[in-house]
Amino acid sequence: MSLLAPIERIGRDPRTGGYRRFAWNDADMELREWFAGEAAARGMAYEEDGNGNQVAWWEPGYREPGGLDTPSPSGSGYSTSGASGTSGSGYSTSGASGDALLLGSHLDSVPDGGAYDGPLGVVSAFAALDRLRADGFSPSRPIAVACFADEEGARFGVACAGSRLAAGTLDPDHALALKDRDGLTLAEVLRSQGRDLRTVGRSAWLDRVGAFVELHVEQGRALVHSGDAVGVATAIWPHGRWRLDFEGRADHAGTTPMADRRDPMPAYAATVVAATRRAYEEGARATFGRVAVEPGGANAIPSKVTAWLDARAGDDAVLARMLDGILVDAREAASASRVRVEVAVESSSPAVAFDRDLRERLAHALEAPLLPTGAGHDAGVLSAFVPTAMLFVRNPTGVSHSPEEHADDADCAAGVEALVRTVRELA
Amino acid sequence: MSLLAPIERIGRDPRTGGYRRFAWNDADMELREWFAGEAAARGMAYEEDGNGNQVAWWEPGYREPGGLDTPSPSGSGYSTSGASGTSGSGYSTSGASGDALLLGSHLDSVPDGGAYDGPLGVVSAFAALDRLRADGFSPSRPIAVACFADEEGARFGVACAGSRLAAGTLDPDHALALKDRDGLTLAEVLRSQGRDLRTVGRSAWLDRVGAFVELHVEQGRALVHSGDAVGVATAIWPHGRWRLDFEGRADHAGTTPMADRRDPMPAYAATVVAATRRAYEEGARATFGRVAVEPGGANAIPSKVTAWLDARAGDDAVLARMLDGILVDAREAASASRVRVEVAVESSSPAVAFDRDLRERLAHALEAPLLPTGAGHDAGVLSAFVPTAMLFVRNPTGVSHSPEEHADDADCAAGVEALVRTVRELA
Repeated sequence: MSLLAPIERIGRDPRTGGYRRFAWNDADMELREWFAGEAAARGMAYEEDGNGNQVAWWEPGYREPGGLDTPSPSGSGYSTSGASGTSGSGYSTSGASGDALLLGSHLDSVPDGGAYDGPLGVVSAFAALDRLRADGFSPSRPIAVACFADEEGARFGVACAGSRLAAGTLDPDHALALKDRDGLTLAEVLRSQGRDLRTVGRSAWLDRVGAFVELHVEQGRALVHSGDAVGVATAIWPHGRWRLDFEGRADHAGTTPMADRRDPMPAYAATVVAATRRAYEEGARATFGRVAVEPGGANAIPSKVTAWLDARAGDDAVLARMLDGILVDAREAASASRVRVEVAVESSSPAVAFDRDLRERLAHALEAPLLPTGAGHDAGVLSAFVPTAMLFVRNPTGVSHSPEEHADDADCAAGVEALVRTVRELA
Repeated sequence: MSLLAPIERIGRDPRTGGYRRFAWNDADMELREWFAGEAAARGMAYEEDGNGNQVAWWEPGYREPGGLDTPSPSGSGYSTSGASGTSGSGYSTSGASGDALLLGSHLDSVPDGGAYDGPLGVVSAFAALDRLRADGFSPSRPIAVACFADEEGARFGVACAGSRLAAGTLDPDHALALKDRDGLTLAEVLRSQGRDLRTVGRSAWLDRVGAFVELHVEQGRALVHSGDAVGVATAIWPHGRWRLDFEGRADHAGTTPMADRRDPMPAYAATVVAATRRAYEEGARATFGRVAVEPGGANAIPSKVTAWLDARAGDDAVLARMLDGILVDAREAASASRVRVEVAVESSSPAVAFDRDLRERLAHALEAPLLPTGAGHDAGVLSAFVPTAMLFVRNPTGVSHSPEEHADDADCAAGVEALVRTVRELA
């Protein structure tokens, strides 16, 4: 049975087969209950921070039978004790203040997302701990499983909002004022779900973490080409999201001569064409996946086109150069159409190089290849605070953020095995 | 006071100041009540056909006091008698079976439309009849005021749906199956408003009409340049609406190399750029005012971009040539992006030349210039069945389909005066 079977129906759109798990919507709330239930079933200490990040703890040295609903092998078990103690030995926590080993990922999705992006890392972490416990493994340090809130940013527009708030790199007031497409603020949504707005921000549990390892389905085909089921990430490409507002003047599509128009659509279109060309030239990536047109009537020249540019590149300098070029193109196209363009940075993440010692150690222990990624992850956010690594599981088509996203069961099992070996190596 | 003051608040969006009067929505229902009330206040016979077109009748020779709530000048009045009689004299009804003179226009709007497009023709028609009655005018033939349903096609995508159904040029079954953006069919909407679906289709009242004169705000600046308050239309440009579906494959915006993508957005964008260029070259018009993107996430490559092309030209051959060119461009752009494109005609209207005798007669009587228009109108639909003319009222900016659409009060009064002289000339 697929590792993901227990949650496969939650938030799936029957028309497209894609997932619609957005921060704090019904599907997300059901997944939160599922995660808390998984923690409880294993007798793990459970907490949710003010940002909606969920963490389940397995404390070292705990040998009492936990609250499990399956027989507990002798000599092992999950702790339900408080999460205050730290053990005195183990992994070098250079740059980190705690000693816990954190696993996990996220459960939310993009619109019509796939089943694996996020959930595979959470489900595999629980499965790995089950394997270790069944093997009688006793960790020398706390091990935790996290589910980060709103990783995709599909609802409020800011990716990795949960981990950024936990790490203190996203201002709580800014986050609480973010609006979804219906005009609801994050503050309103959190309040309606009974959350305490005073606890939004820097998370205390992060101080206990000495290392983070996020397992994720690969979003590309490097592992297909290398012939490996599992790989270790070297780096995350710098990336960001820019909102471009092209403002013109609504007018009648039939009676307004071309030369009298202030139509923002051709300016937007020319910008897309230019951005695509620049991304090819730079070996980078530029995507316009979301567009809003006002007033949106087929026989009205638009007054406004708002478009979101997702741009990524292999290093910060290339990204900056490509972006500068695209914005010059956008301004020239706007000028040619007699419209205005305004650009706002919605998020921007510099290049992340994962902890060199940790990635080399895991690549050696797992006999896995090293590869970079163009996708942002909570691991990229946490890597500024604790030694962090990512494991990728092979994706036959490389397709992601789509119902076609896939990983074979055998490769998912190899991913669990890699996490088991990771824990044995580090904890 | 502005002629439009009685309805100026109905359906206006407080945020944009534009109107959102779409077929059978709350604002449209309120306007329907207003129209019926205006007919009743004047003692005019009122009917609504199965397509939602509203008609109010003033019968010839009727001299009893009507049901007016204002004092009736002696010697005039509106008939409330049945609409069956025809008078034996008057305007040559070449090509028409009836003898009534029809005035009027529509009350619905595009999204964020202006106040004048449509309503000016309805309100001015009632005002002209009031003036004629106050002057003691007694018509020799029936005079009617019409409000046509769903002229803009903003909700169900087919412009002039009410007049097309009345004229029998839009198939009732096709119309009833049209869906709005929420997936509701016209059939469902009509039923929910208590309308009888069996009466949708060819309208009997049209057989009584011998001539139609639609007054409309100008959607351009020809009258500004000529220095006239009112003009007479010569023709309506051929025009149509085409839906282009660009279908690719959803994928991750960060991890999918440009060369591996099947992204429909650059193909759509290249099509917009090419269509804009062709419209300039042909002296024609091409507009993309409505776009839908699936799945619509900023960090997901779209699986599909659906766009609506509104295209118009001075004659049928130019429009056909431009459209052929745009579709070639679209297919080439789709091929270059490894996506598919499918094109569907949503509506297509050939060139309309208004009745030569009628337009010359009115231009002479009103001492008004002749001018063509790029906009479609119910007058264009009816012109295939009855001698039809259009009067335009000067628009200082030429802007239309926008909250900035405007006509000065003095010019609106000149429009009413032109309708008064039109009725005296023809009835």
